[in-house]
Amino acid sequence: MGSESRQLLHPRQDLYTSFRRTRDHSASICAPLLAEDTCIQTMPDVSPPKWHLAHTSWFFETFILLRYLESYRCFHPSYDHLFNSYYVTHGDPYPRPRRGLLSRPGIEEVYEYRTHVDAAMAELLEQVDDGLIEELNALVVLGIHHEQQHQELLYTDIKHIFAQNPLRPAYRRTGLHPVSDVHPAELRFLEKPGGIRDIGHDGTGFAFDNEGPLHQVLLQDHLIADRSVTNEEYLAFIEDGGYSRPEFWMSEGWAVSRQQAWQAPLYWQRESDRWLVFGYEGVQDLDLNAPVCHVSFYEADAYARWAGARLPTEFEWECAALDEPVAGNTRESDLLRPRACDGSRQFFGDVWEWTASPYTAYPGYRPAAGSIGEYNGKFMSNQMVLRGGSCVTPLEHIRPTYRNFFYPPDRWQFSGIRLARDIDKA
Amino acid sequence: MGSESRQLLHPRQDLYTSFRRTRDHSASICAPLLAEDTCIQTMPDVSPPKWHLAHTSWFFETFILLRYLESYRCFHPSYDHLFNSYYVTHGDPYPRPRRGLLSRPGIEEVYEYRTHVDAAMAELLEQVDDGLIEELNALVVLGIHHEQQHQELLYTDIKHIFAQNPLRPAYRRTGLHPVSDVHPAELRFLEKPGGIRDIGHDGTGFAFDNEGPLHQVLLQDHLIADRSVTNEEYLAFIEDGGYSRPEFWMSEGWAVSRQQAWQAPLYWQRESDRWLVFGYEGVQDLDLNAPVCHVSFYEADAYARWAGARLPTEFEWECAALDEPVAGNTRESDLLRPRACDGSRQFFGDVWEWTASPYTAYPGYRPAAGSIGEYNGKFMSNQMVLRGGSCVTPLEHIRPTYRNFFYPPDRWQFSGIRLARDIDKA
Amino acid sequence: MGSESRQLLHPRQDLYTSFRRTRDHSASICAPLLAEDTCIQTMPDVSPPKWHLAHTSWFFETFILLRYLESYRCFHPSYDHLFNSYYVTHGDPYPRPRRGLLSRPGIEEVYEYRTHVDAAMAELLEQVDDGLIEELNALVVLGIHHEQQHQELLYTDIKHIFAQNPLRPAYRRTGLHPVSDVHPAELRFLEKPGGIRDIGHDGTGFAFDNEGPLHQVLLQDHLIADRSVTNEEYLAFIEDGGYSRPEFWMSEGWAVSRQQAWQAPLYWQRESDRWLVFGYEGVQDLDLNAPVCHVSFYEADAYARWAGARLPTEFEWECAALDEPVAGNTRESDLLRPRACDGSRQFFGDVWEWTASPYTAYPGYRPAAGSIGEYNGKFMSNQMVLRGGSCVTPLEHIRPTYRNFFYPPDRWQFSGIRLARDIDKA
Amino acid sequence: MGSESRQLLHPRQDLYTSFRRTRDHSASICAPLLAEDTCIQTMPDVSPPKWHLAHTSWFFETFILLRYLESYRCFHPSYDHLFNSYYVTHGDPYPRPRRGLLSRPGIEEVYEYRTHVDAAMAELLEQVDDGLIEELNALVVLGIHHEQQHQELLYTDIKHIFAQNPLRPAYRRTGLHPVSDVHPAELRFLEKPGGIRDIGHDGTGFAFDNEGPLHQVLLQDHLIADRSVTNEEYLAFIEDGGYSRPEFWMSEGWAVSRQQAWQAPLYWQRESDRWLVFGYEGVQDLDLNAPVCHVSFYEADAYARWAGARLPTEFEWECAALDEPVAGNTRESDLLRPRACDGSRQFFGDVWEWTASPYTAYPGYRPAAGSIGEYNGKFMSNQMVLRGGSCVTPLEHIRPTYRNFFYPPDRWQFSGIRLARDIDKA
Repeated sequence: MGSESRQLLHPRQDLYTSFRRTRDHSASICAPLLAEDTCIQTMPDVSPPKWHLAHTSWFFETFILLRYLESYRCFHPSYDHLFNSYYVTHGDPYPRPRRGLLSRPGIEEVYEYRTHVDAAMAELLEQVDDGLIEELNALVVLGIHHEQQHQELLYTDIKHIFAQNPLRPAYRRTGLHPVSDVHPAELRFLEKPGGIRDIGHDGTGFAFDNEGPLHQVLLQDHLIADRSVTNEEYLAFIEDGGYSRPEFWMSEGWAVSRQQAWQAPLYWQRESDRWLVFGYEGVQDLDLNAPVCHVSFYEADAYARWAGARLPTEFEWECAALDEPVAGNTRESDLLRPRACDGSRQFFGDVWEWTASPYTAYPGYRPAAGSIGEYNGKFMSNQMVLRGGSCVTPLEHIRPTYRNFFYPPDRWQFSGIRLARDIDKA
Repeated sequence: MGSESRQLLHPRQDLYTSFRRTRDHSASICAPLLAEDTCIQTMPDVSPPKWHLAHTSWFFETFILLRYLESYRCFHPSYDHLFNSYYVTHGDPYPRPRRGLLSRPGIEEVYEYRTHVDAAMAELLEQVDDGLIEELNALVVLGIHHEQQHQELLYTDIKHIFAQNPLRPAYRRTGLHPVSDVHPAELRFLEKPGGIRDIGHDGTGFAFDNEGPLHQVLLQDHLIADRSVTNEEYLAFIEDGGYSRPEFWMSEGWAVSRQQAWQAPLYWQRESDRWLVFGYEGVQDLDLNAPVCHVSFYEADAYARWAGARLPTEFEWECAALDEPVAGNTRESDLLRPRACDGSRQFFGDVWEWTASPYTAYPGYRPAAGSIGEYNGKFMSNQMVLRGGSCVTPLEHIRPTYRNFFYPPDRWQFSGIRLARDIDKA
Repeated sequence: MGSESRQLLHPRQDLYTSFRRTRDHSASICAPLLAEDTCIQTMPDVSPPKWHLAHTSWFFETFILLRYLESYRCFHPSYDHLFNSYYVTHGDPYPRPRRGLLSRPGIEEVYEYRTHVDAAMAELLEQVDDGLIEELNALVVLGIHHEQQHQELLYTDIKHIFAQNPLRPAYRRTGLHPVSDVHPAELRFLEKPGGIRDIGHDGTGFAFDNEGPLHQVLLQDHLIADRSVTNEEYLAFIEDGGYSRPEFWMSEGWAVSRQQAWQAPLYWQRESDRWLVFGYEGVQDLDLNAPVCHVSFYEADAYARWAGARLPTEFEWECAALDEPVAGNTRESDLLRPRACDGSRQFFGDVWEWTASPYTAYPGYRPAAGSIGEYNGKFMSNQMVLRGGSCVTPLEHIRPTYRNFFYPPDRWQFSGIRLARDIDKA
Repeated sequence: MGSESRQLLHPRQDLYTSFRRTRDHSASICAPLLAEDTCIQTMPDVSPPKWHLAHTSWFFETFILLRYLESYRCFHPSYDHLFNSYYVTHGDPYPRPRRGLLSRPGIEEVYEYRTHVDAAMAELLEQVDDGLIEELNALVVLGIHHEQQHQELLYTDIKHIFAQNPLRPAYRRTGLHPVSDVHPAELRFLEKPGGIRDIGHDGTGFAFDNEGPLHQVLLQDHLIADRSVTNEEYLAFIEDGGYSRPEFWMSEGWAVSRQQAWQAPLYWQRESDRWLVFGYEGVQDLDLNAPVCHVSFYEADAYARWAGARLPTEFEWECAALDEPVAGNTRESDLLRPRACDGSRQFFGDVWEWTASPYTAYPGYRPAAGSIGEYNGKFMSNQMVLRGGSCVTPLEHIRPTYRNFFYPPDRWQFSGIRLARDIDKA
């Protein structure tokens, strides 16, 4: 990471502006919630919204304020235990599956905590020595990106919380969206030549540690789809018995799908002869033209096999994405749902795309020293890489090299499918 | 139940007054709570406070308003599903262990529901035909007693909710109580002759169906303690290795105590060389003179065996209690914790006393017709009878014939111990 | 227990004869088994047959040989751990649910263990002092009855083991029994007057400690059925939707029946339009005339409610049984299944009859001192009493006062239904 | 796979000889077992030995005899259900975790099944048309390799079965091995240049489908250890607090290790001041010089991190192994345990070596058509690749390209550790 470029990007004022904008956005996501909505946990993967609001503040408090602002006083002595997510070298985190058992601190107190941290951050950024600004800048930017990750989780966790409720409450009352009238063009495959390619982040601007080091991989010649799989296409898989034909499925995927009685993506519901989906505006018609969403890796993989294709590796994906503009249906559109392809290639925004790549370390990967080193590295087992960002990801948070990761059965993220294919050598 | 006596007790105005007083008290119990406190569920046995507030309203709506008030309109079409507790012949109740997954309706809306039901009840009581008033009176009184039961659950569930929180929040800020300076007199046993005795409710005034019919049982000569077991006495059991000596325990009790690592009653915590307890005012010193509380049947039974005694049967208890005034440390004292014995025999108030009697039907027992018949009868397996009421029970809710019932491992109620003994025939 | 009567019953030779007959019978039950059949465990309640064979030997070794035969040498130092069932004051028993994980000792070695114990018992009975013979006699007789209990478990566990196997192997090849052509007379109720009655064992001859002390109870006037409920009668309950109508069921019974998808008694299977049952000869037609069998307490209780009746208390049962001859379809018939009522009242043999009585201590009950005191007393919670013995119980093991006990959901014993009724007082 | 080379390797007689040798060896592994040892299942991953014996026969019956030998008659109609492991497109396999609930067929009948299948195979190989011999040869060789895989599982499952038994029975009575007196030379790293390398099987001779297609990968410059990690080296990790320092562990590994209370590799036990291990000869001293064994991926990975190294990728491993002779301490040595390094590089035999590579498909991988296609492909999620073979693998079953795979927490295989390192670019 070149220090020059960073200082240009984030002199103190810019850094503070960026910090405030991020902090304010977290609060704005939660603005439509009742206090009750902010404290429940509908499955172990979900965190109560107020927990996200507190944890992101704890991150700044723990990794920045307590280290750099001498005058800083902890807001509450127990918060270090309650709002530490998983930094076991830092302390003993309160157990994740029990986050929904905490009614206190209430949301009001959590907002006070945020205000307390924000004020201290302002103070710190004003007074910090020039000698430390670069070091501090790196941490603040990390904290901002950390909070942006939790903003996406806020969206997806809120959706899950609302969806479990038989009342099917709406998060916002903007009315039902009309389904799109754009029918995407037929899916085509882009031909991609193999060869040695650079993979990973080059250190210019912010990136998470797991995106590096930059290194070379050897790709085979291959094909990659020019857009995401749509609901209509996925529906054909369902109607062809996709959920009851084991030949398409990984063994574990088949087991999970039977055990949890999957018949369609998460949030789909059948009503007589049509499909509805639950979203931020409540229940509405399925948009056949939009990218399929809320599928697990197992479903994505089974769909691909049914379609005579496969998922791309994360390297194939990254190389293809480097040819595309970093733009798309991201959080800025305020749609909060995937949108029918309008001719773009949809690499960025709409849905995170499951890849065929397990999440592992790049050659030469070294986590940061200290507790912050637990950020990414220790999760490099049992998960799969997703790429590209979604309709609830802010655009500035998306990069071609960004490696998101979730467990193969996970479905509550905005996760979808892009196909790839080998080129048969006759 | 004689109709004459009931009409004297509850002509329309009195009935409405009693109804209002009960309804208001439920709200007052929840007044100190944050919205967040009202919607979480810390174990399957616990219900979120707002669920209790809604369910008790549902009871009046379902069993009274929808049947007797023609103009009544349901507050919300889904509440019949959400707030039906266990009346499976009435509908399909929302699963109990998932009550904590419902952030909506929020507490404000639940209060609106209560207001809606209360207004309709006022209207109904004003306009109902004289011909129906008796029938209605019986149901309203049942609803009142039903709500009083849930008030006790509100107290015990709130205590559990607060206790799980590492912040150990206080429900009320009345300051720590001083521990009592009254040292109770040594426990003595009252000699009770055997013989044929009447057991159960005679129909004068309100009683639950499980208290009848009045019938005769044959008691043996026996001894029954003149007060509850104190914390100091229970501590001697602990210090004598009570929790690590299987010879005192039922086989299942031993298994549960090992699995859950019981070392003391619920809410006790050791701090260096002294014992503290968690209560409505937060953590405070253990009052050695007060009755022991929050013990399971298994602990009560093991303590009794250690003490060379046994628990009384519910019939022995009832006969002894009939000789005592119905008075004691009940909710009216506003202590919300057991109090050291001041010379009374403590049959009523302080703690529910585990008996040696499994909860079964009295001879000739018939549940009411219809869904209301599910109130008590279907729970007559696997539970044990407790008698006497506690420090969070309203006095008017307590009767010598009252049969409370919980599972042998349950500890979150105000449950304690009274000893009994056989008289050895030399 | 009068010593005089016992010495008459069991002078040394008789005692040894009785011991040998019992020991030999255990082996004969296992004779048709493969070594493989003797070592598996199909649910935690079931023990591998070889475990029963070893445990019953351990009982004689531990409670008799090691105490009374100075020259006795333990067969194997680890057997005290492996074959102690639940005597926690004696040592640390190997966990019950893991008994099926032990391939060693193999069945041959277990038979050597039995031979070793039997030889030592012969030696002991020959040489024991006259002064100890009475004390010893009591223990040997207890050991014999203990082994007879395990013989019944051998039968029921073997049935369960074979039934889980899709091959549906036959335990014996005596050919399929024809279903009975006797259609039992219509069920009638015997009128029984209430009053004070003696309950429990009077000490003459052997009884388990839980059958005493003899004491008085007060019965109400009541009716008790003159025979067991038949498969045909139970089928009417099934066909009337008994398994899908919650109004007949205890709340816990309903939950269990849904969770385990009960549609009929254990071992019944539907084949197109008829019902088959699995038994010791493999699968055969359901005998509609025979008593219904392999039902849980919950099913027995629900059936009774459906039939407008109830289950008898254990006291009502005992009083009625005292009027009947102790005879019936017991193990001696070698049928190994219930038989259609031929005019007897079926109190003894055929099926254990669930009563309405939870298993608790009789007034004045004291378990024996030492580890042997764990035999019965510590199980006096959460179980229900069954009475009368079954088609796999030896006749000499049955008494009117005998209290068997199992958990309400248990179905793998030969457990059936006798009805009772209150007499309505107009 | 070139047909020429195969025919040379396996003309009919050679094929039959190879088949018989493999079949006989399976039986010889089970020869020391009691019937009881052959039918129990000590964890879901373990299969009863007789199940392995039957399943491997089912494989020949299902995929060869029923297709190629017209006169073949199934041994038993239910075996296709009972002994189908996981071929869901072929039928409905009996549930794996319930294999230990089957006492029948007994081991004798399973041997009859084997004899029946073997005879039919002999008949088939004698009479088959020349036109089919090539196709058949491929399947028979697959069946042989399939059975060799199950031979390894027989060894590891038998070890697990015996180890659960508190009697700690010995599988064979060859006496305790002396611990080795060879102290391996200090571990050194071999320098390996990066570049494009061929990976996978080239089709000459037998290989599983998952070893192909042959393709190119790009390796970085790296170091790879010249031998396996020893018990002594692993002990240093233990003594340095390895099992209580989360900084070395994957997040999931840490969770599993806490939950299962890992303190050392599987089968290690501490006795006062020394370590013992359980093996085929019972309990014996830990051989400090031998390769560490029975560690999970999580332990291997944590050890590597503690040692300042990492695990090799499967590609790094394969390239290094191609430089080594395919020889080592395999089943042929009959040691049945890893042996101290004698100067060889231990790539083959001793222990399977965990790699850093998740088990995924090679580019262009296509599973075979039909049910046989379920052999490997559907397991390509959630598992890690191990390489090299172990002390219980037959030498002819080992290849540099062989990809074994197990779940990260698995420990009951002979799995060990080889270290690798990045080359830092200064």
